[in-house]
Amino acid sequence: MALELDQAASPSLTHDIVRWISQEYHDMNGSSIQTLESPPTAAEFAQLVHISRPVVIKGFQIPALKRWTDDYLQTKLQDQLISVAITPNGQADAIAAGPGGRLFFVEPFIEKVSMGKLLEQLNAAERNSDNLSASYLQSQNGNMYSSSFFESPNDNSSEFGALRGDVPSNIPWVTEALGRNPDAVNLWIGNSKSITSIHSDPYENIYTVIRGSKHFTLLPPCEGWCLQERMYPHAVYGHTDNSNCLSVIPSSDTPQVRWSSVINPDLPGSLPSEAHPLHVTLEAGDTLYLPVGWWHYVQQSGPTTIALNWWYDAEVRGMNWIWLSLLRGSGDVPSGNDETDTR
Amino acid sequence: MALELDQAASPSLTHDIVRWISQEYHDMNGSSIQTLESPPTAAEFAQLVHISRPVVIKGFQIPALKRWTDDYLQTKLQDQLISVAITPNGQADAIAAGPGGRLFFVEPFIEKVSMGKLLEQLNAAERNSDNLSASYLQSQNGNMYSSSFFESPNDNSSEFGALRGDVPSNIPWVTEALGRNPDAVNLWIGNSKSITSIHSDPYENIYTVIRGSKHFTLLPPCEGWCLQERMYPHAVYGHTDNSNCLSVIPSSDTPQVRWSSVINPDLPGSLPSEAHPLHVTLEAGDTLYLPVGWWHYVQQSGPTTIALNWWYDAEVRGMNWIWLSLLRGSGDVPSGNDETDTR
Ligand SMILES: O=C(O)CCC(=O)C(=O)O
Ligand SMILES: O=C(O)CCC(=O)C(=O)O
Repeated sequence: MALELDQAASPSLTHDIVRWISQEYHDMNGSSIQTLESPPTAAEFAQLVHISRPVVIKGFQIPALKRWTDDYLQTKLQDQLISVAITPNGQADAIAAGPGGRLFFVEPFIEKVSMGKLLEQLNAAERNSDNLSASYLQSQNGNMYSSSFFESPNDNSSEFGALRGDVPSNIPWVTEALGRNPDAVNLWIGNSKSITSIHSDPYENIYTVIRGSKHFTLLPPCEGWCLQERMYPHAVYGHTDNSNCLSVIPSSDTPQVRWSSVINPDLPGSLPSEAHPLHVTLEAGDTLYLPVGWWHYVQQSGPTTIALNWWYDAEVRGMNWIWLSLLRGSGDVPSGNDETDTR
Repeated sequence: MALELDQAASPSLTHDIVRWISQEYHDMNGSSIQTLESPPTAAEFAQLVHISRPVVIKGFQIPALKRWTDDYLQTKLQDQLISVAITPNGQADAIAAGPGGRLFFVEPFIEKVSMGKLLEQLNAAERNSDNLSASYLQSQNGNMYSSSFFESPNDNSSEFGALRGDVPSNIPWVTEALGRNPDAVNLWIGNSKSITSIHSDPYENIYTVIRGSKHFTLLPPCEGWCLQERMYPHAVYGHTDNSNCLSVIPSSDTPQVRWSSVINPDLPGSLPSEAHPLHVTLEAGDTLYLPVGWWHYVQQSGPTTIALNWWYDAEVRGMNWIWLSLLRGSGDVPSGNDETDTR
């Protein structure tokens, strides 16, 4: 589950100001996304971080890009069990209806399978559209390298330890520009059913596609107000009695989750006319710099899509963090299950 | 005169929000100023720009630091006339009372003298406290290198062309970090009477002291509300009839100027208790990185103080420029000559 920006009690900006900021931001920055033909130097990347706009970077070469065939992945990982998110609809960490038609923020059912089994499931699902569940390897929080690895590099707790030789633990031009190691490096393996609901992270994100295509819908931090964040009760997908269907099982002790009510921002009418979503597709070998606080909705195509990303903690010194907190506000976030739409 | 941030019609933040931002900024960033023992790399400097806090940098060596004795300066410049600001009180570009006790934003009288004459005036004034006027070489806007130099490097219009061999036109680690040349490089020569009133500039500023000491009082962009900006009619110092005293002469066609009403922020009671001014003194060989939008009040000590600064245009892409505009607002700025203090 994506982490949320720290919600220190921040006051809410008025609607007028929020709209003025969005409009001014759009007027000054437009809708284009810059493409670099090769990776930037550390100083160039630091400048991009300061501008804080998404950038597509070509030519960032890592061994995984050449090596990762199905055979290679299976041979390397053998019987190693890996944690896969199972959902009825491909949407892990998303809003879904549960008991009584109430809406919940639902986390996936986690199944542990071998890489061979995962690849088989993904390929089979791609051929067969009426199956009852979808698998997405999106365990996050450093499934390749976690913060404990950066603290003590002998840490071996990754399910993907056998693939580390193909994935650098950090990216020199990012590490030098930010003056720090990543907080987490993640592997993502899915198919066209896998969707990540719109959210933002407190990270500078470097996202590289290894196989297939990834489609990002992006909104700047100042357009978060278009996404109708609401409070949702927490639930997980699970099997009740002896059915093999997944149902939404409300959690008893987990606090409510603040999440966007916009299920699919690409659906016409989902966003107010003041929103300026950007669309970017990454092919194998393409890398996206996705700056802290940018909202992203992620889909994919291709029989099996594989991606890697490096999350670096965002800078908290200076004003940037305060501006991000202010844009999100922590004031009255209404419940997502209220009768009236308070948008 | 220091340039102002572009005043695109921006709405005003509420008092509550402005106070919350100042407090949060202070809580997260404290009051300390980092000192680097040697100049940063371009990537390190780019990171400092992103954090946007003042930093003292030691060991930035330029030929002027070793060469600029009084003799050297006079020999190099000979009879070249240079523009010197003359004021009754050492305050060029500052608020002062004029006819009928009304307050004006007053620009200095400009006198053209040789370097020998200027150094003589500064030394004499330092010995003699009751003189009627103060000289400050603060012609700015690129008196060493101006933007026209960066457009066509054969431009020779500087009064200080003969000193260019001692002053690099740009600083490699700044130029690389920002991806641009400076907009202006300025020479400042004054004495303990010279004071620059509190203001902010739309520049990333690298300020190096060559001789004497400079004392900066700094406030972050988010504390601008503590400075009571008001609209003041424009005036210049000049000689009326055959007196050799300078008086405030109201301008007829110049628009009003928005300026802080705080004449001396170091005077107890001048700032509200919510302000957190920082104080930093630079000695010869010290360099200050003063980020865009930071408020500064500048004094000096030592018989003759000499400084150089490089102004680089600030980044206007991304959100930073919009935040700076929002912090200044362009709403109702009251007149500085109103009966009631509207603070
Ligand atoms: O690839 C995905 O499905 C989601 C990626 C994502 O949310 C991230 O990198 O923060
Ligand atoms: O040195 C001074 O008196 C003023 C310097 C200043 O305002 C600047 O560098 O922007």
